[in-house]
Amino acid sequence: VTEDVRDALARKRDGGVLTEDEIRSLVLGYARGEVADHVASAFLMAAFIRGLDGAETASLTRAMVESGTTLPLRGVSRPKVDKHSTGGVADAVTLVFAPLAASLGLAVAKLSGRGLGHTGGTLDKLESIPGLRTDLTVDALERQVEEVGCAVAAQSRDLVPADGTLYALREATATVPSVPLIAASVMSKKLAVETDLILLDVKAGSGAFMKTPEEAAELAGVCVGLGEAWGRRCTAAVTDMSQPLGDAVGNALDIAEAVTILRGQDHGRLRELTLLFASQAMEALTGVPSAEAVSRAEHALESGDGLETFRRMVEAQGGDPRVVDDPATVLPSAPHIRPLLADLPGAVTSMDGEAIGRASVMLGAGRLRKGDAIDPSVGIVLHAKIGDRVEVGQPVGEIHARDPVSADAAAARVLASMTVSEEPVEPPPLVYGWHHA
Amino acid sequence: VTEDVRDALARKRDGGVLTEDEIRSLVLGYARGEVADHVASAFLMAAFIRGLDGAETASLTRAMVESGTTLPLRGVSRPKVDKHSTGGVADAVTLVFAPLAASLGLAVAKLSGRGLGHTGGTLDKLESIPGLRTDLTVDALERQVEEVGCAVAAQSRDLVPADGTLYALREATATVPSVPLIAASVMSKKLAVETDLILLDVKAGSGAFMKTPEEAAELAGVCVGLGEAWGRRCTAAVTDMSQPLGDAVGNALDIAEAVTILRGQDHGRLRELTLLFASQAMEALTGVPSAEAVSRAEHALESGDGLETFRRMVEAQGGDPRVVDDPATVLPSAPHIRPLLADLPGAVTSMDGEAIGRASVMLGAGRLRKGDAIDPSVGIVLHAKIGDRVEVGQPVGEIHARDPVSADAAAARVLASMTVSEEPVEPPPLVYGWHHA
Repeated sequence: VTEDVRDALARKRDGGVLTEDEIRSLVLGYARGEVADHVASAFLMAAFIRGLDGAETASLTRAMVESGTTLPLRGVSRPKVDKHSTGGVADAVTLVFAPLAASLGLAVAKLSGRGLGHTGGTLDKLESIPGLRTDLTVDALERQVEEVGCAVAAQSRDLVPADGTLYALREATATVPSVPLIAASVMSKKLAVETDLILLDVKAGSGAFMKTPEEAAELAGVCVGLGEAWGRRCTAAVTDMSQPLGDAVGNALDIAEAVTILRGQDHGRLRELTLLFASQAMEALTGVPSAEAVSRAEHALESGDGLETFRRMVEAQGGDPRVVDDPATVLPSAPHIRPLLADLPGAVTSMDGEAIGRASVMLGAGRLRKGDAIDPSVGIVLHAKIGDRVEVGQPVGEIHARDPVSADAAAARVLASMTVSEEPVEPPPLVYGWHHA
Repeated sequence: VTEDVRDALARKRDGGVLTEDEIRSLVLGYARGEVADHVASAFLMAAFIRGLDGAETASLTRAMVESGTTLPLRGVSRPKVDKHSTGGVADAVTLVFAPLAASLGLAVAKLSGRGLGHTGGTLDKLESIPGLRTDLTVDALERQVEEVGCAVAAQSRDLVPADGTLYALREATATVPSVPLIAASVMSKKLAVETDLILLDVKAGSGAFMKTPEEAAELAGVCVGLGEAWGRRCTAAVTDMSQPLGDAVGNALDIAEAVTILRGQDHGRLRELTLLFASQAMEALTGVPSAEAVSRAEHALESGDGLETFRRMVEAQGGDPRVVDDPATVLPSAPHIRPLLADLPGAVTSMDGEAIGRASVMLGAGRLRKGDAIDPSVGIVLHAKIGDRVEVGQPVGEIHARDPVSADAAAARVLASMTVSEEPVEPPPLVYGWHHA
């Protein structure tokens, strides 16, 4: 076996192609502890530099799914949709999408992760609602999805365990930003859950893994190809992350923003993208024409149907349902809130989403290391978007902090992350393109 | 530190160049156990695929030397020469070179290793002389070299410890056959011993790491460049390993062959190459003109001076000195000896040295794994060389085995490793070229 693994390593090292069996042995062997760290790490580096072709990426994805259990969701009768974002800043789409899609008759069983680095995590955001739990059993998850239409829960350790171990090794060996390795990581977790549609939100820009729409399109294409190879319906959108998507960068602040959108009181880019995904899912799964799907989704926000589903989801997961009526009272609030005042006049030309995300982490809203505690109350609210005109001293948002010192430091970082111009600036598109399979 | 190491890995991964500090941190950190296996392994794979430039290879070599102690050999007054072969089949040059050069007034303090895979080890060969020990202390080594002129001892674990750990990792991760990694491994061990001249025998052919003279020349050039960067005199010869160099492939059999050459009774390629190295060393270190150096070296073989020095070296290391008078009686002999009869008529066109080496390992003369026991008595004697005409049934050598079954199997392998032709065949050159610094 060792000889075979070494032969496979040597072939990938020299730019050759590995067989399904070779990739299976490496991945499953590593997940079982039979293939050593240094062997897996040599494989990752060779795969990073030499690349993996479509068949190799599919073999890697399949082996990762095989490393654990799957979630058939047999107890759910509605059409099932899964939505996944590759990670961005102020990206609370899931918080709105899940109840919105559920209120349109679809089922959303969303398994999510915690925030790490400059991107926030849906679980952390939801857990800022007092009482809310995300550690649902498979049975509780299915029951809730069948009754309420949606649930957001922590991903079980038994689901694609190879992803966690390989990801940790990739972090330690500088082999994270590889399209096939990222695609296998993303898609293995989606393919392990039986749904009728996988919606991928592949972010492109300063706040995302993929810095350009072209790189993001490559990743989207590989992911959709993997879905297709698996016989699963999969749609990916390449969306803009050259600036924070919504206004809130934190945890309780994101919940408050989601409630505002579900009340129909916010018409920004976060609402718009969520409506696109919800109508896309509805059209794909129910056959309703596109225009009608959009108007039904808009109506679900205006009528309060989405908000009502969110209330039922929060309640089912043990959270305080009054959060939908009075978020300011129910959610934890930071002791020190200071306004964010523009310090340059002009049209906003760029924002460094990653820097804004890091400023939020410094406030205590995110974690630098796995297992770090977070403060649900702190964070950043930034209303200004690329293309907006601002004047010196104009309020463009708020810093929610534990103390004035950290508030001032975060304000300086956020302002430093923005550039302005005297000329008018065109806002970036919300969606760069769609990939279907 | 971890961040820095990861940055360095990412740079090498993308084809960039690492600084001396970065390479030092990786190598010394790994040698100290502070850099994990998987990090070192990712570095090795990236370095293998992307390559290391001259400065990086020098930094790697320097860090490896720094990982341990050095051997100044201050107690040795004669001009000191070190000879090293990159490893071949029937390559007993050291056994003859050390006493020959010593008999010419030079000092040879040779630190050697054990055989692994299809190539034999000088220590294993010498230890087939009853009583002979190779575990000399530094003091005993210096004293013997000063008195006798030569010693062959096991390399201490304190000398370039990073080489042993890195080599084991390279074997496990398919990162062995890389010119800069091999050059750093070879030269770090030579540079850690203070000598006036380093002679490198870089083998090219089926029985060697480097399969072509061009690859071998590349390795020779990098090694000589490293010597130069270190301010050390270094000469490398690229020599033929398209067939076994001498006739004996074993351990006691090699000692018997060395004694025959030192008696002036053998005029084959092994003798010829040893004479070239000895005269090269003499010319370089004493200023004696080339032609005179060759004739003095030849005389040392004809007169028995070299043999006498070998006797003194064996005696100094505790071995039975009568081995030089009657090797057949003193050396262990195999219970079963069968002749090797040519099975095809014609001129020998090729020999697979690696296959012959492996046949010898199967007989018990070598080891597949570190620490395996070896049988000093068994092995192969093969007189035929490329260009020789053979007839069916003509004796071309002998198999020395533990039993008839293994003898027959080895004989079949050796015969299968040779091809013949009806046309006359030109023997390959002994030396493809020299590299000096």
